[in-house]
Order: sequence, then C-alpha cells, then structure tokens
Amino acid sequence: MIPRDHPRYHSLRTRERLARCAKKGIVTLEGLTAHGRGEAFDYLIGERTTDSALLAERTAAALLKAAHHPVISVNGNTAALAARGIANLQGASGALVEVNLFHRTKKRVELIERLLEDAGAEVFSGEAERLLPLSHDRAWCRRDGMFSADVVLVPLEDGDRCEALVSMGKTVIAVDLNPLSRTARTATLTIVDEVTRALPNIKSACNELSKKERDRLIDSFDNNYLLSDAIREMTARLSHALD
Amino acid sequence: MIPRDHPRYHSLRTRERLARCAKKGIVTLEGLTAHGRGEAFDYLIGERTTDSALLAERTAAALLKAAHHPVISVNGNTAALAARGIANLQGASGALVEVNLFHRTKKRVELIERLLEDAGAEVFSGEAERLLPLSHDRAWCRRDGMFSADVVLVPLEDGDRCEALVSMGKTVIAVDLNPLSRTARTATLTIVDEVTRALPNIKSACNELSKKERDRLIDSFDNNYLLSDAIREMTARLSHALD
Repeated sequence: MIPRDHPRYHSLRTRERLARCAKKGIVTLEGLTAHGRGEAFDYLIGERTTDSALLAERTAAALLKAAHHPVISVNGNTAALAARGIANLQGASGALVEVNLFHRTKKRVELIERLLEDAGAEVFSGEAERLLPLSHDRAWCRRDGMFSADVVLVPLEDGDRCEALVSMGKTVIAVDLNPLSRTARTATLTIVDEVTRALPNIKSACNELSKKERDRLIDSFDNNYLLSDAIREMTARLSHALD
Repeated sequence: MIPRDHPRYHSLRTRERLARCAKKGIVTLEGLTAHGRGEAFDYLIGERTTDSALLAERTAAALLKAAHHPVISVNGNTAALAARGIANLQGASGALVEVNLFHRTKKRVELIERLLEDAGAEVFSGEAERLLPLSHDRAWCRRDGMFSADVVLVPLEDGDRCEALVSMGKTVIAVDLNPLSRTARTATLTIVDEVTRALPNIKSACNELSKKERDRLIDSFDNNYLLSDAIREMTARLSHALD
C-alpha cells in the first residue's frame, strides 16, 4: 500500500493501476514504457492543465460538436487510465467510441471493450477491416467508424497512425504530453495535457460552448501556438530549477 | 521485427529487451515505466553524452579508484540494460558488485545475479541483512558489501535509498537522466546520462586517469554545476524546437 501522504501518491497509484491492467493484458509492456515517457513530460509541465492546454481542450470540444461523424479512438492505456472519462465525453459529444490497438489481438480488443462498457461507454464494434494506409495492425478499423469519421480524437496515439489519419483528410485531435513528438506535430489539434485531466475538460466544454463560441474557437485556433506554449511552459519549469 | 532504418531503432530494441526481461521477472512492471521516464529525459538531452556528463563520468572513475571499499549496486533495469557494462566496469575499478532491489524476492535476486555472472561479473552475494535506515525492502544489503562501502555507484536508484546512503556518510554516485529528481539532487555526484553510455565511459576513465588527474577531479567537482548544465542542455533543446 502506498501511504496517502507520499509526495508521489497520485502518480504511484496510477502506475499500480497500469501494472494491474498489464497483468490482465489490457495494457502492453510497451504501453507501460510509453506511460513513463508521458509522466516525465507531465512533470515538466507541472502536472496541471496549462491555459493553452485548456484552450486546446475547448477547441477540441468545438470540433467534436461541429463534426458530422466524430469518433473517439481508444487504446489500452487510455482505457486503463480513463474509461469513465471516455464514457462521459461520449455522452457530451455524441461521438462513436471505437477500440483501435497497435498490438491487436481479439482477446485484447474484447477486454478493452468490456472495460469501456463497464464504465458506461457504448462501444462501436462492427466488423474491422484493414482500411488505413499503414503496414501494421493499426491499419485495422471499421468502415462505418474511424474510416468514415471527419473528426477523430486519438488520445495517446502513435506518430504513424496520426499521419495516416491526417493524410486521409481527417481532422485529428491528439492528446500527447510530448510537444516534440511526431503525433503532436502532425495532428490538426494537439492537447498537451494528461489524459485524465484533458477528457473532463473537453466534456465540460462540450456542454458549455454556444454555437457562436464554437465557431470562434474553430476559426481562430493555431496549433503552432499551442505547441510553442507547451514548450515554453516546460522550458520555464526547467529554468526555474536553475535559480 | 523492427526495421533497422526505423528512426527509433535503438530505442525500440531497448524497449523490446526490457519487455523480454519483464516477462522473465528480471525487470518489474514499475521498472518499465521508470525506463519510459528516462527515455523522455534522454530525448531532451539529445540521446548523447554531454560534455558535463563526461566530466561527471571521469569524476566517478576518480572516486571509485580512490575508494577503499567501492560498491556498484545493481537493480533489475541496470542488469537488463547493461550487465556487460557492469562486468567491464568491475574489471577496471575493482568494485564489488551487489544486487539490491526495491521489489525484492529471492527468485529475482538470483535471476539478476545469474544475468550478471553470465555477462562476466563477479557478484558479491553474502548473507543480506536489513541494515539501511529505510522501511521497505531496499533496506536489505550485505554487511561486508554496501553497508561498509565508502563509495557507492547506484545506477537508476530511487530517491529514498539515495538519501539513506548519503545520510550514512557514503559518497554516492548516481546515474539519473532526470536532473530534477530527488536522487539527482541528493547524490554526491550525479551523472545525467543513459546508463549504457555512462558505464563504458567510467570504465575507460578508470583505465586512463593518472593519480594526479584523479586528485584534481575529486578536488574540483561541483555537482550543482553538473546538474545545472544538464538542465541548460535540455532547455536549449526544447527552445530550439520553437525556432
């Protein structure tokens, strides 16, 4: 048991949760390493939602609400960390929720779908086909799901898949704590925030934004600014340690 | 199989290696997350040995060579990543090699000792006792090993243990890619470098340094400078992305 007053209580509990999910086969061993990378960048951003990240989250809500066919793509880490957050965002945004895995097995897909359903999500699980321009298992998706989407929210995505979706003309919203990653630089809109903080903020904005505010956010967003501001936050925090 | 021309070939191969070691029980699931954190900071430092890290490595060699009873403390991640590097450094420095684990089981200790021995290290594995001022399993060590050491090299150590060793009056040399971590800030000397790059550099310096150069390095080192310089490198790399 981790004592509640441990300075890293939240982070250690999250790690334990991921380790449990890894034992069940929901999270892969590579997923644990990826989580560690995220932790480091989250540490640099102060483990909080910055102003520019909140702006990105409100813009994400605007894009999802204005979409004709929005899809939330869920992988193992996202399901393990934020199944409830996905379910709530689905309720507020009306998006399809679809499981898409890099390390794809039938059993893993089912485990993750069940985890999402237990958290209250309605999972779109039609017949998967190899539809994305990618060589590996991430090419699989569903014709009436991700393949037909105009706006896709991909929390914790890999760079190849993000590029493939953008090349298909989709609006891709990524959640990625590393503002230098290929995913972050390729996505249409990048939210540099931790996924369990980002999803509730997007959900709230879905409920709050007027049509006029949505249009204004969509017309004015600048992903270069959002990435630059995240980098500036990290640089400032590192520099502060020099004082 | 990862294609050799993949931009992240080395990093992906290392992750595969750790995942294999996790399946065998050498590396813990928490160890995989810790590796991910290291990867993020290594990325920020440019995945290379900086000038100040090389200075730290040469100073580490000087401290090990000047010690009466130097010990290299090895955990699961270090053994998985750098068993050969540990064996070679032992040859050059004459240090004892002792296995010390946060998640300690007899089976894990034996697996790691065997891995080190297969790589050519001579492992000190006398009777372990609960000798360090710590509440968890990391308190275990050996009376004639770590407990009696004057200089301890702890690659990839946790903050509590580093503090305990320093409080016992030991000279603690840490290898830690996060210059802001408690370990990095507590250690007597901190090497901000990736462990498979750091160990061969320390080994070479053990063989090369004259007595005079060793004395000069020991007399002149400034850990605040070493940490500050690592932070400056990371800040510069982040800022560069803004150009």
